[in-house]
Amino acid sequence: MPIQAYAALNKGQPLESFSYEPKPLAPHDVEVKISHCGICHSDLHLVNNDWGMSSYPLVPGHEITGTVSQVGSAVTQYKPGQRVGIGWQADSCGECEWCAGGEENLCARAAPTCVGRHGGFASHIRVHSRFAIPIPDALAMENAAPLLCAGITVYSPLRTHRLGPNSRVGVIGIGGLGHLGLQFARAFGCEVTAFSTTADKEAEARQLGAHHFVATRTTGAVQKLGGSFDFILSTVTADLPWIDYVNALRPYGKLCFVGVPPGLLNLPVFPLLANKSIVGSNTGSTAGLREMLQVAARHGVKAQTERFPLARVNDAMGRVARNEVRYRAVLEV
Amino acid sequence: MPIQAYAALNKGQPLESFSYEPKPLAPHDVEVKISHCGICHSDLHLVNNDWGMSSYPLVPGHEITGTVSQVGSAVTQYKPGQRVGIGWQADSCGECEWCAGGEENLCARAAPTCVGRHGGFASHIRVHSRFAIPIPDALAMENAAPLLCAGITVYSPLRTHRLGPNSRVGVIGIGGLGHLGLQFARAFGCEVTAFSTTADKEAEARQLGAHHFVATRTTGAVQKLGGSFDFILSTVTADLPWIDYVNALRPYGKLCFVGVPPGLLNLPVFPLLANKSIVGSNTGSTAGLREMLQVAARHGVKAQTERFPLARVNDAMGRVARNEVRYRAVLEV
Repeated sequence: MPIQAYAALNKGQPLESFSYEPKPLAPHDVEVKISHCGICHSDLHLVNNDWGMSSYPLVPGHEITGTVSQVGSAVTQYKPGQRVGIGWQADSCGECEWCAGGEENLCARAAPTCVGRHGGFASHIRVHSRFAIPIPDALAMENAAPLLCAGITVYSPLRTHRLGPNSRVGVIGIGGLGHLGLQFARAFGCEVTAFSTTADKEAEARQLGAHHFVATRTTGAVQKLGGSFDFILSTVTADLPWIDYVNALRPYGKLCFVGVPPGLLNLPVFPLLANKSIVGSNTGSTAGLREMLQVAARHGVKAQTERFPLARVNDAMGRVARNEVRYRAVLEV
Repeated sequence: MPIQAYAALNKGQPLESFSYEPKPLAPHDVEVKISHCGICHSDLHLVNNDWGMSSYPLVPGHEITGTVSQVGSAVTQYKPGQRVGIGWQADSCGECEWCAGGEENLCARAAPTCVGRHGGFASHIRVHSRFAIPIPDALAMENAAPLLCAGITVYSPLRTHRLGPNSRVGVIGIGGLGHLGLQFARAFGCEVTAFSTTADKEAEARQLGAHHFVATRTTGAVQKLGGSFDFILSTVTADLPWIDYVNALRPYGKLCFVGVPPGLLNLPVFPLLANKSIVGSNTGSTAGLREMLQVAARHGVKAQTERFPLARVNDAMGRVARNEVRYRAVLEV
């Protein structure tokens, strides 16, 4: 039976109703009947082929929740009806050192969910069962969907860099990623500071877990925080005066990018000599996704969503493009 | 009795014979009769006031070895005649979180040995006894002197970032720091690659511990090493095409600066997303210096030196300035 979806037929086009015949269900595959799919800025980049890796027709969507509808002959961990999620990655080689070590997200042959295959703005999707992640009962499907990409993207660096109750953490950008970053940083026990250009997000940022709020358009607001942070997580895709954030780090502090600014960093080396780091972070492994969802269930971390029926996908994408959503758009299929 | 030294009387001047009356020996101070002092590029920067922190007359020298000649009334760990070394740092506040935690080198009030006080191009020096480091018997004084700054500078990042026999380590620049970096990386059990603009250093680099040698002026030599290294230590003070070295890192790899290039890094964020880092590293603590000297004694790490009598200090500094020394100039007092 064909899968009903929405696709960009060419670069930068509005999405249109589109159906496709799925490839046969392989022994280790599952088919998932999609209930919700978050909209990530990456989906816009893919539609516009900003990264030169898109092929058309392109069905976006990689923050998927739903229920298993079919399992391949070799699948034993899932049965039809079970709740699962699928994130940025749909497959990997399964054989390299990274796959063997449980870090498939670092596999050189990692297959993104909607690059060269069709994603989650659709009725169903088929993926290798390893990349279908169980959703804990405590999480509602619409709040869990954005955790599969935005959530793991901010969870992974907090975990990798071993942040804890002794850590002072800043989150730059209170949007789809940042509003989850505040919640997870709080769950790790950190002292949390939100950095935002939007001063009227302060009350919400504090409800989400921030102890402190810095309105970054206030002159000198960042500069006066020299030597204050162990970790600053940047979720934005803009060019900021990064040197101010490097100076805001304590010795051993790290400025971590999960959003990619368009320009170069243009940073001097000298301030790094206090054992400071500039780091990047990837999404996360399947084991990381499972763990992150358990932590979210245990600590009440959830995406704040605006919901749209799938047929209104273009309206929703427009709001995402204009940064109007507070804080994550989710399609209801 | 006045201390006999060589000093720059003004910015950028050749050094001249100079004597000064030391301040009284405080209860926790030791006086050291200097036998050797290495010449570091930092000494040239200080003479030229490149960092805007110099005061004149300026006695350079912070890679000091010698024997204790006097101890203050509260010093119990040293007696006259004991062999000690003094590095970049001569004092700290002793009270802040970093001093309390044994990382005095990160103290905001850290006092460099030859900034605002007189350094090691001299007959004697007085410092707080905490900053006099015991020299193991196995180390010759002339080979140990450069370990006090150049040695700890390359040892600290290998130790901090937990490199070991599973690590592939590159060292950029085979000079005063780099030739020690090769030896220490080998002592940590790493697979070691030397990067040098000087192709005829290959044989020596291999003797010092490099398994591989990359002549970086050969077109494409660095570019073809994509995804190869866990850690690349840059000891140079030049602007290199850093993106090639970022690309040469494996996932989780780190490009670590101990030399400060004059320009900005100009790096894109995207390649960092494979959990790569750009890091800086400081010299090291007094505990780190003690440990590093023990490791050097145990593993036969030593500076290869060119020795000059103190009276020929200006000849020696000229050779350092022209990068002619293989690999560290040491003054004999």
